[in-house]
Parts: sequence; structure tokens; C-alpha cells
Amino acid sequence: MAKALVKLSYLGSYYHGWQAQKNVPSVQKTLQNAAEKLFLMPCAVTGCSRTDAGVHAKTFYCTFESKRLETFPIERIPSAINLLLPEDISVKEAMPVSDEFHPRYFAKEKEYEYRIYVGGQRDPFYEGRAWMMPGRTLNVEKMQQEAEKLIGKHDFSSFCAAGSKIEDKVRTVYSCEVVKEDDLIKVRISADGFLYNMVRIIVGTLYECGVGEKHDFSAVLNDCARASAGRTAPPEGLYLTQVIY
Amino acid sequence: MAKALVKLSYLGSYYHGWQAQKNVPSVQKTLQNAAEKLFLMPCAVTGCSRTDAGVHAKTFYCTFESKRLETFPIERIPSAINLLLPEDISVKEAMPVSDEFHPRYFAKEKEYEYRIYVGGQRDPFYEGRAWMMPGRTLNVEKMQQEAEKLIGKHDFSSFCAAGSKIEDKVRTVYSCEVVKEDDLIKVRISADGFLYNMVRIIVGTLYECGVGEKHDFSAVLNDCARASAGRTAPPEGLYLTQVIY
Repeated sequence: MAKALVKLSYLGSYYHGWQAQKNVPSVQKTLQNAAEKLFLMPCAVTGCSRTDAGVHAKTFYCTFESKRLETFPIERIPSAINLLLPEDISVKEAMPVSDEFHPRYFAKEKEYEYRIYVGGQRDPFYEGRAWMMPGRTLNVEKMQQEAEKLIGKHDFSSFCAAGSKIEDKVRTVYSCEVVKEDDLIKVRISADGFLYNMVRIIVGTLYECGVGEKHDFSAVLNDCARASAGRTAPPEGLYLTQVIY
Repeated sequence: MAKALVKLSYLGSYYHGWQAQKNVPSVQKTLQNAAEKLFLMPCAVTGCSRTDAGVHAKTFYCTFESKRLETFPIERIPSAINLLLPEDISVKEAMPVSDEFHPRYFAKEKEYEYRIYVGGQRDPFYEGRAWMMPGRTLNVEKMQQEAEKLIGKHDFSSFCAAGSKIEDKVRTVYSCEVVKEDDLIKVRISADGFLYNMVRIIVGTLYECGVGEKHDFSAVLNDCARASAGRTAPPEGLYLTQVIY
């Protein structure tokens, strides 16, 4: 067996998330089918993250593990597999890695971007690619003030979907910024790891601050209770943008 | 009867162009159906341009002409009609105009942008929104040199689809620039008017210059023959970006 680290990009609209599930399309299964068609042999596909249904990835990493990789020229994977993949998934790079490498456990840092559309009327070019909030006026300065309180090592239980089985909810956020670019408000956040729905709950709560509701993010963090935070922003605005090993 | 000038934006992928045709979806017919649902009365819809199947419009103008507009508050059209339109068409603004106003004949200048994707592997976020040429290296400087020769008043017969019935093929190009922005090469062109397929033939010929084929645009213009120019670039990279009245 040999292993390759594969860098890819996908538009998540059509998929029920990364993770393979019965009877619904997933990015993982689509990649595995293409890899096995290319290798004519079984191939295990392991991802760096379990993105939700509808979430996009500008950058995503997974590993391919297959006996065929002992002889297959790994640098040829992108051009070869892209002919077998649908248009909404593209493999950008592939490189050999050691057997111990794990795309999730070896990730030191991940970065997400969330896009909220606030132009005058809805925009066809952002449909399915941003949270559509046409005509909304958000107080970006206020959002930025609260966002900064997330930076550092905290228990993020308040920003984790209820029912998550993960026990250790302490994560370190390296940066969290809110910027307005043309008709979009972008929230960019990097951390050593993210809990289930963490970015979407952070953005939903920041949005509520932006329209004038009161949330003190320091108090929300201290509460360690999902009910203290605001709504969960929808998946279509979320992009995994970077993973650092 | 009263008339409104309507500014809109659409993603053209699904439509067989602007113009209503039997048995296939068009932007014009989709808008007319929505307007008549809103007005509960007939409404004539006239466009500023006949975009081809698959071509997009960041900015497009049309007029609505209906008896209902004598009393309907025109500034309320965008929010009201957007509830009746599919996600790939959005009305941005509406304003009253005189009966004589014609969105095509009154246009003084139009501007198009064409996008060629030249990143390392294909990109899911540009599928259907750019001419996909992954891995291609284009000589942007050479393309720009030829593009500049189009500026001014010329007979553009060489850059008009064969079989076009228009007799006067003289147009004035105000600007034509080729720029590289990240993974995209963008061709921006403005003129007092455009012939059938003019931008797509210009871009197809510029592309051929970019990969090393020889086309002297001054000679191509002088020939006044479609065969002297290069290929027609596909519709999915083309955007109508501005119309000036």
C-alpha cells in the first residue's frame, strides 16, 4: 500500500457533505469511485474535515491509499482523475506522503471564509454561494468588535451544535475578521480546529449583532451553552479556504 | 400605456438567450411571465441586446410597457417581481421612461467582459462562468498589442458571424484591454454597438494570438471577411457588463 495527499476544490451545492452516506451523493464517494476507475483497484479516501451538505471548499485535502499507488505516477493523478470527475469537483495537486500521515489529525490549522450578500437586490451570481441577505444593513464595526473576543484559547461549547459527541471543546482561534468587500460581508476565521457547526453559529450570532441584537461574545463563551449563542447561518455561504500541515 | 426602464442581472447558463423562442426557456419570456403575474395584465418586454444562449449579463436593460404601469408604483417593481422570478434572474432597479425610449436604439455604448480561466487545473467555481482553458499559457502582452488595433471606427465584417443580415458593419470601439487577474484572463471591450458574435470572435482570435498563432488584427479588419479571423470563443465566458444611455 502507498499513500498520496490530494488537494482539491469543490462546489458543495449538490452534495450531502464530504462524508459518504447511503443513497445520497457525497464528495468522498464521488472521489473514491473516480479513483477506483482510474486505478482499477480499491482505494481508501480519507478527508481532512467533514464538511456539511451545501458547504464549499476552495481548498480541501484528502489521502488516497491504494496498492496501485506503489507504481502509479502520483503527479499524474490531477489531470487523469479530473477527466473522471464531475465539473463541481477538481483535483488540483497530488503528492506522496508517508503511511502515518492522516489528513485530519495532522492538520495544524484550518481557515474558513463565510460570505453574506448584502447588495440592493439578490444577485444571480451569488445564489448558492453566499447567505442571501439583500438590502440588509449590517454594522460591520460592531461585528468586528465581537469577533475579536473569540481570538485565543477558549471552550467553544456555546458555538457547537447541540448533540455533538466531541468531549474536548477547547479550541484556539488564531484570527477572526469581518470585512466588507463590495456587496459581500466576509467573515474569515482560522483556528487549530473547529467544532460541529462552529463557524456557522459564530456567523449567525455575528449577523444578529450586525442587525442590532445584543450579544457579548465574552459572556456567550463563558456560558458554555449553545442556547447563549444566536442562530446557525446556512451552509451555502461557507468555504473551507485553507488547511495547514 | 406607460413605460418603465428595468435594470437586471442574469446568469445565462439555463437560457437559450434573451430572445423569446418557441419551446425553449428565454430570459425575455421568463421576465414577461413574471411581469404579467405581477400586473395581472399584458406587459410587453423589450431588451437592449439579444444575448446568445449561455451568455451572462451583470447589467442588462429592458423596458416594460403595460397599461398597469399608469398606476403601479414603479420603484416597487424590483422587490415585487424578484419574488416571482427564478434565482438566476434578478431585477435591480426600475424607473419611469417616456414612450419613445427604446432600450436598444437609445443605447450609446455597451461594455462586455470575457473571462478565460487559465489556472493549473479546472476550477469548480468557474464552471459555466468562464472559458475553461486550464494549464494554458497565454501571451497577454501579445494579445493586448493586437486588441489595441481594434480601437476606433472600423468595418468589423471580419468579426461578425457569417450569415448576419445586418448591412452596416461599421462600429466604433472605444476601448479594448486584456488583463490577467489571478487565474483569469479578462478581455474588456466597449463600443457604440456590437455585431452578431463580435466579442466572441474577437476573443477567439485573441486567444489564438495568445497561444502563438499569427493574426495581424489590422490586416484582419482590412479583409472584411469572417474567414480571416480566428475561432468563436464559447458563450459561457461572456458577460454584458454595462449599457450607457
